[in-house]
Amino acid sequence: MHLWYTEYHTENVGISFKVRETLFVGRSKYQEIAVLDTFEFGRLLVLDGLVMLTERDEFIYHELIVHPALFTHKCPQNVLVIGGGDGGSIREIVKHDCIKEAILCEIDPQVVEISKKYLPSVSSALEYPNVKIIYEDGIKFVSKFSNYFDVIIVDSTDPIGPAKGLFESSFYRDCFRALKEDGILVCQSESPIYHLDLIKEINLKLKEVDFPIVKFYYGIIPTYPSGMWSWAFASKKFDPIKYIGKEREQLTVKTKYYSLDIHKGIFNLPLFFKEAIKG
Amino acid sequence: MHLWYTEYHTENVGISFKVRETLFVGRSKYQEIAVLDTFEFGRLLVLDGLVMLTERDEFIYHELIVHPALFTHKCPQNVLVIGGGDGGSIREIVKHDCIKEAILCEIDPQVVEISKKYLPSVSSALEYPNVKIIYEDGIKFVSKFSNYFDVIIVDSTDPIGPAKGLFESSFYRDCFRALKEDGILVCQSESPIYHLDLIKEINLKLKEVDFPIVKFYYGIIPTYPSGMWSWAFASKKFDPIKYIGKEREQLTVKTKYYSLDIHKGIFNLPLFFKEAIKG
Repeated sequence: MHLWYTEYHTENVGISFKVRETLFVGRSKYQEIAVLDTFEFGRLLVLDGLVMLTERDEFIYHELIVHPALFTHKCPQNVLVIGGGDGGSIREIVKHDCIKEAILCEIDPQVVEISKKYLPSVSSALEYPNVKIIYEDGIKFVSKFSNYFDVIIVDSTDPIGPAKGLFESSFYRDCFRALKEDGILVCQSESPIYHLDLIKEINLKLKEVDFPIVKFYYGIIPTYPSGMWSWAFASKKFDPIKYIGKEREQLTVKTKYYSLDIHKGIFNLPLFFKEAIKG
Repeated sequence: MHLWYTEYHTENVGISFKVRETLFVGRSKYQEIAVLDTFEFGRLLVLDGLVMLTERDEFIYHELIVHPALFTHKCPQNVLVIGGGDGGSIREIVKHDCIKEAILCEIDPQVVEISKKYLPSVSSALEYPNVKIIYEDGIKFVSKFSNYFDVIIVDSTDPIGPAKGLFESSFYRDCFRALKEDGILVCQSESPIYHLDLIKEINLKLKEVDFPIVKFYYGIIPTYPSGMWSWAFASKKFDPIKYIGKEREQLTVKTKYYSLDIHKGIFNLPLFFKEAIKG
């Protein structure tokens, strides 16, 4: 049998993976969850028909959503991840020795459960003693805090369905309040090829919320729409360009994509992207 | 009718485009040539079943294969493109006022003919007075020169079929000889995700040929395999990091992806790529 899984990135373009085995398909309270074992990219976590990660290239996404902020911050101790129930972001966060507590706030317990069962290399740090998992709506959870977190990472799905509120001004305002005076907020911000209008909107909303530093950076995720991906970096004090892990050694954090050199490069945006968010 | 074109990047993964119209399919002496009009990426030039360019994202590839070398070189006057019969690289080259002669050496006249007919925005500079088109095997052509070109750009197809020889040491040696004492050679060098062994091989071969400076840079081409693409930069004198267009204004060259900032960023390679070619 030749089994293929196709994700349509727009109604006119798609990526297809040859599938070895369908390991899991089910429906949680929030979404359809599937795990497919593919020949080229290993296991895929698919939520509501969209590839969240593949075993082969997830390291790029998770290193890039975590390390630019964690190496920019002088001493990140309390970090919150909203979404990201697969555990990939947490795995990268706890590589930093300074972390006292990493909280994962995931709305859907089944995503965590499925990741623990089928994606051990991704969920590997979820049982660490300095990791705490909260099953709650991230919007509600973050609104309870004030001046508490060093870094908040919004590892959300696309701005449809359960993640819609994670792209709203009121949520960004709550994140601002929940961050300490030198805190940093990072949000995955979709593809500059397909979602440039959304990126512009995120940029404006974050600036309105009074973050003095709002920048974007980019990277390549082969299995995400267009391959070109972006993250918003909103900071109260530390500039990701001027301040990069000067006081900490990168050597203790093992990575495959991120390095301090990459850090310097990824904030230099493709011209069409830079121009879309300028001003 | 729902017509889709699928390119298999490996035997286990593919990208599919919804097709509005098949504008041309034919066979030249060297290869099968097709032009498809797609809904998402505009017109596609497809050679032997592989997407060479799409109207929507070709600007990234052509800006990145040309401008890093042309802005590193102090005063590029004579530039050779091998392959690239579509004309995209030539279009970027002639944006530089200093160019006296840009030679396009393409083995297949039909690629040029088809591009002129169906891809006017790509082939737009092929009739410029400082552009000369030679229909010959690039390997033979370059072997006739000594100390002549400022920059040689190898805009080849994949290292199978007619382009195989463009990845050989003897060809690189001929390019070295054909370049002036401050000349630069740039070669497209495939995907770091799928073709890392080939990249390692190119790196070793270029170093053996005595280029004192051999570096790689990377970029994102959404419609190429894995989206992550690379180029080899072999230079006799100018370092692309230390010397970037210091004496020329970028403002005269209009681009959509490349900028002097991007130039600085793209030589900072993802760690797995950097480590594969170190030493």
